[in-house]
Amino acid sequence: MTYTLVLLRHGESDWNAKNLFTGWVDVDLTDKGREEARRGGELIKEAGLTPDVVHTSLLRRAISTANIALDKADRHWIPVKRSWRLNERHYGDLQGKDKKETLEQYGEEQFMTWRRSYDTPPPPISPDNQWSQAGDPRYADLGDQMPATECLKDVIERFLPYWQSEIVPDLQAGKTVLVAAHGNSLRAMVKHLDGVSDDDIVGLNIPTGMPLVYRLDDNLTPTVKGGEYLDPEAAKAAAEAVAKQGR
Amino acid sequence: MTYTLVLLRHGESDWNAKNLFTGWVDVDLTDKGREEARRGGELIKEAGLTPDVVHTSLLRRAISTANIALDKADRHWIPVKRSWRLNERHYGDLQGKDKKETLEQYGEEQFMTWRRSYDTPPPPISPDNQWSQAGDPRYADLGDQMPATECLKDVIERFLPYWQSEIVPDLQAGKTVLVAAHGNSLRAMVKHLDGVSDDDIVGLNIPTGMPLVYRLDDNLTPTVKGGEYLDPEAAKAAAEAVAKQGR
Repeated sequence: MTYTLVLLRHGESDWNAKNLFTGWVDVDLTDKGREEARRGGELIKEAGLTPDVVHTSLLRRAISTANIALDKADRHWIPVKRSWRLNERHYGDLQGKDKKETLEQYGEEQFMTWRRSYDTPPPPISPDNQWSQAGDPRYADLGDQMPATECLKDVIERFLPYWQSEIVPDLQAGKTVLVAAHGNSLRAMVKHLDGVSDDDIVGLNIPTGMPLVYRLDDNLTPTVKGGEYLDPEAAKAAAEAVAKQGR
Repeated sequence: MTYTLVLLRHGESDWNAKNLFTGWVDVDLTDKGREEARRGGELIKEAGLTPDVVHTSLLRRAISTANIALDKADRHWIPVKRSWRLNERHYGDLQGKDKKETLEQYGEEQFMTWRRSYDTPPPPISPDNQWSQAGDPRYADLGDQMPATECLKDVIERFLPYWQSEIVPDLQAGKTVLVAAHGNSLRAMVKHLDGVSDDDIVGLNIPTGMPLVYRLDDNLTPTVKGGEYLDPEAAKAAAEAVAKQGR
């Protein structure tokens, strides 16, 4: 038995376009982002992939990406599961700040630590900050699990229970699983699947709107390390562009 | 305790616009239909309603209506449940046929029997017909429950188990429930809620894109018979227009 898992990072959002730190701020896709989602759905359909269930974060840009891609792939009718555990990394006090200004203000070393350190989170966001999610009804059940900032390590720790309890059972039931999520929650998944080191995972850039397909064996080990992009050349060019963000 | 149930009929579809019998054929919304869905979502938001869960059919026009309306209402992140039991009435061999031509070919009496009889279905569709859903993967689990035609009575019979097993528990858990569905599956719900007679229900026209709110008491009896439209004047005008369809 081979299990099929399709990862899809949301397309360009309003704040990607404006070069702002986004995190849990619930911004919309741009027209370009919607077009990326359509293209992602077309690639899924052309590859003959038929997702049986979709998992999304609680953020609009991932939810809309899933809705648009599944509509294009004629799989709009499949069951939907959502969880905050698939959300983007919470960017703490940096949420809402301009990436370039932050780089200039704090310097290259601090900037890269916040962006790419495995285990150093940015300063926590105040509940009074306009970009805090304190009090947002979608997180009402989280209690003291509600983050005020996160490093990638934190994302992995809150992602793994969802992987085990929700995604693995769907895979083991023979379902083709689509996960529509974010740069860092998808890094968490890829780190777990491929056994990427703490040092290497922070440098891995998953491009937006490009379906990444993992075929997993009985032990849920990838048959091809790193998975396979449905459009490998476009994915390579896009990953290089992502790596340059904030410059 | 008062329970809150919001019904939303999908906006105009490609085949509404072309005046074709649609049934289970999975046509898209028109631009007008998408605009109706946006307006429905705005009305839900302006009324301060906060759906906690959405139930949809397996048809694109209801799914897209729910996605668009919930996005507008900032409730895009709520749990989603879908079932064929909320689908439009299966229109049998009439699916894909022009309403006006069918009226001219078969005459007023036969036409109105097929459209508005409570318990006389149209002729069944052949599995070879291009507008049959035989073999559609989304209905693979139905087995001999898969209809080849339906009258309104059939819709009510396949709707009620879903009402009891899926919608009532959500209501009794205190959730505000949104149901995005179709003219006839919503007739089934309204008939059950308001105790409408077999004769009267066939003449009830629920307008598209107009949220209809039922507040239900502990016995799940509506506190206001017929519910309340969020935009009553627009709903009245629209219901009159629906009644004239096919003429």
